[in-house]
Amino acid sequence: MKAEILAVGTELLLGDIVNTNAQYIARRLADLGISVYHHSVVGDNPERLKDAYELAFKRADLVITTGGLGPTKDDLTKEIAAEYFNKELVVDEESMKKIEEYSKRNNRPVLESNKKQAYMPKGCIILKNDHGSAPGCIIEDKGKILIMMPGPPREMKPMFENYAVPYLEKFSDGVLVSRVLRVLGLGESEMEDRVKDIIDSQDNPTVAPYVKDGEATLRITSKANIKEEAVKLLVPMESNIRERLGDYIYGVDDTTIEEVVAKLLIDKNLTIATAESCTGGLIASKLINYPGISSVFMEGVVSYSNDAKVKRLGVKKETLDKYGAVSKETAEEMAVGIAKTAGTDIGISVTGIAGPDGGTAEKPVGLVYVGLYIKGSVKTKKLNFWGDRQNIRNRTAISALDWLRREIK
Amino acid sequence: MKAEILAVGTELLLGDIVNTNAQYIARRLADLGISVYHHSVVGDNPERLKDAYELAFKRADLVITTGGLGPTKDDLTKEIAAEYFNKELVVDEESMKKIEEYSKRNNRPVLESNKKQAYMPKGCIILKNDHGSAPGCIIEDKGKILIMMPGPPREMKPMFENYAVPYLEKFSDGVLVSRVLRVLGLGESEMEDRVKDIIDSQDNPTVAPYVKDGEATLRITSKANIKEEAVKLLVPMESNIRERLGDYIYGVDDTTIEEVVAKLLIDKNLTIATAESCTGGLIASKLINYPGISSVFMEGVVSYSNDAKVKRLGVKKETLDKYGAVSKETAEEMAVGIAKTAGTDIGISVTGIAGPDGGTAEKPVGLVYVGLYIKGSVKTKKLNFWGDRQNIRNRTAISALDWLRREIK
Repeated sequence: MKAEILAVGTELLLGDIVNTNAQYIARRLADLGISVYHHSVVGDNPERLKDAYELAFKRADLVITTGGLGPTKDDLTKEIAAEYFNKELVVDEESMKKIEEYSKRNNRPVLESNKKQAYMPKGCIILKNDHGSAPGCIIEDKGKILIMMPGPPREMKPMFENYAVPYLEKFSDGVLVSRVLRVLGLGESEMEDRVKDIIDSQDNPTVAPYVKDGEATLRITSKANIKEEAVKLLVPMESNIRERLGDYIYGVDDTTIEEVVAKLLIDKNLTIATAESCTGGLIASKLINYPGISSVFMEGVVSYSNDAKVKRLGVKKETLDKYGAVSKETAEEMAVGIAKTAGTDIGISVTGIAGPDGGTAEKPVGLVYVGLYIKGSVKTKKLNFWGDRQNIRNRTAISALDWLRREIK
Repeated sequence: MKAEILAVGTELLLGDIVNTNAQYIARRLADLGISVYHHSVVGDNPERLKDAYELAFKRADLVITTGGLGPTKDDLTKEIAAEYFNKELVVDEESMKKIEEYSKRNNRPVLESNKKQAYMPKGCIILKNDHGSAPGCIIEDKGKILIMMPGPPREMKPMFENYAVPYLEKFSDGVLVSRVLRVLGLGESEMEDRVKDIIDSQDNPTVAPYVKDGEATLRITSKANIKEEAVKLLVPMESNIRERLGDYIYGVDDTTIEEVVAKLLIDKNLTIATAESCTGGLIASKLINYPGISSVFMEGVVSYSNDAKVKRLGVKKETLDKYGAVSKETAEEMAVGIAKTAGTDIGISVTGIAGPDGGTAEKPVGLVYVGLYIKGSVKTKKLNFWGDRQNIRNRTAISALDWLRREIK
């Protein structure tokens, strides 16, 4: 089966946003063994959209669209598709009910423009939208398949995974199995050096490195007629790589470092509190994104001012005067202080210079100290980053969490 | 002039990388007033690449490609273009010299595959690559223009800016001026209802609404022969929209709500402290992303447990028992408590149910209370969101900051 990905939206054509949806869908279709030869983007224009359908169905059996399902009159993907396939648009009662309930809950009237989202091509398969109001749908006709999904990635991705992928599995041409190994604490070249011979001699499975925002990944992909065979090919390759990268690998696939750490804390029933300066709540916020964290995460302090460090955490004024707020000593007292005042097993602290100002020759922008108190003993770690403020703060949070992972593992 | 962006590369088709080049070029072409109606992606396949050229030149006068100029035998963009335009590939001496020097500097032999990069379509305009070995080029023929650039963004962007843009300026069909108005606190349909007649009757300037993660934007774009004229067209339209949307508009272009709030706090010299439950440090973290915030941001508490609310913020145990942690009363005491203990002018608090568990019929997932203490007086606000945990937390943080903005403005 040949597929084509068609993104609809003038905001894409104008370069207001990046077409990350195409990448996501392309990768998942590759996993399913469905070949993709073209991606296209077209604006919210009836004639060009119709031409785009015609062209796509000339080249492919399956066309997947994203975008243009919203309430505004610019949103035309569904309307033009209905025209193309000569189908009437009819109310989908369940979708209409959902839209009405949503408006009610928000004390808003149900506008005509909202209702438009519940009109679907007659006879189509509805794809539920669990994260927004515009449902997607599948039209099967003339030996062709059209799958339409909303544009916002956080609506599109779960819809695709939960409702489109199960539908598509029957068209899968052989099976691809992929596994992404997630690596922290090793630079890109260092990681590549360790697995270079594997990458150079790859065939099936293939191994692809990728680096983004201080984190590296290795994607292993194997192909076979059935899933079991593909997994059999993948497993020894994964073991081989794991032997070389050891516990630099913190997780697989879509796992995040905060998820790994949160799970470890919950499993081991270790309570935690955070004391953050330059990261300003980023570590707490990442951990709290994990549902169920409330059983172990007790509290956090964003001790941005020196006053707060003294008052909330019991950092000694002399320490601040003698060593400065960004120092090993302050990080240590912050970690002990937050654990003691919160009564937790673990206290993790961060103090650093995120820039762009505030750096000196001795303490440059990017210098960060992390403190880690675990049940009576405390350690600190000095880190150096470069990049802009946001980048430094984010890398600091990730590195601190990764250090915590290794210490409690 | 109509243009089309064509990205070449199997790694894009497979979803290994995101096509950020298309966004970059699209935005710059919009700045130049060159219309783009299609973006496409095609793999490193001779037949499909040739078809892609044919299609693109049928639809457009100018085609800009990225990718496929490298040394490997998969890189075919230039070769197929030469074939399409019936041009010979000839050595460009300067490019060859550069490749030889580059190899010498890196103590590498000059491979045949490297030399391939210096063969260019006869009569083309060479675009220097200041950040890599593959030059780009411009072919002018049959009334059409083809601009080919390398795929890596750090090579493509400077080449485009320094060599392609000066070439393209002569085709600039007038000047486009854009302004994005950023809106918070109004739903997408509500916003559209207020400006519907403007959108319906738009011509020059055009007005395009867009919504993402609870935030809405309106892009106004005007076109004229010179910039001053375009600005003159834009200004009254902006005023007209501002009259209808009032202070729901919090900023323009790339401004973020945290930036607006941080600037307001600094300008008015209002000190602030945060007390967060479900947002878990997100509000603090957003504010702290603004450089210079340290003069007004004093501290934050992530009072996730009830204990922390009592101990750190002085919330009364009776309040928690009687009304619960997620209540108007608790939000109020949190806001007062953080301001009092931190000694700040402003205390902002959040308590809510981010889910996926913990909701009841009375207090469903997505229910959030925000408390706002400003110099002696305190208010609370009840909010309802839907979506996943991350989304609820993020929208809560943005709404809380937006409320703060309106109160201190």
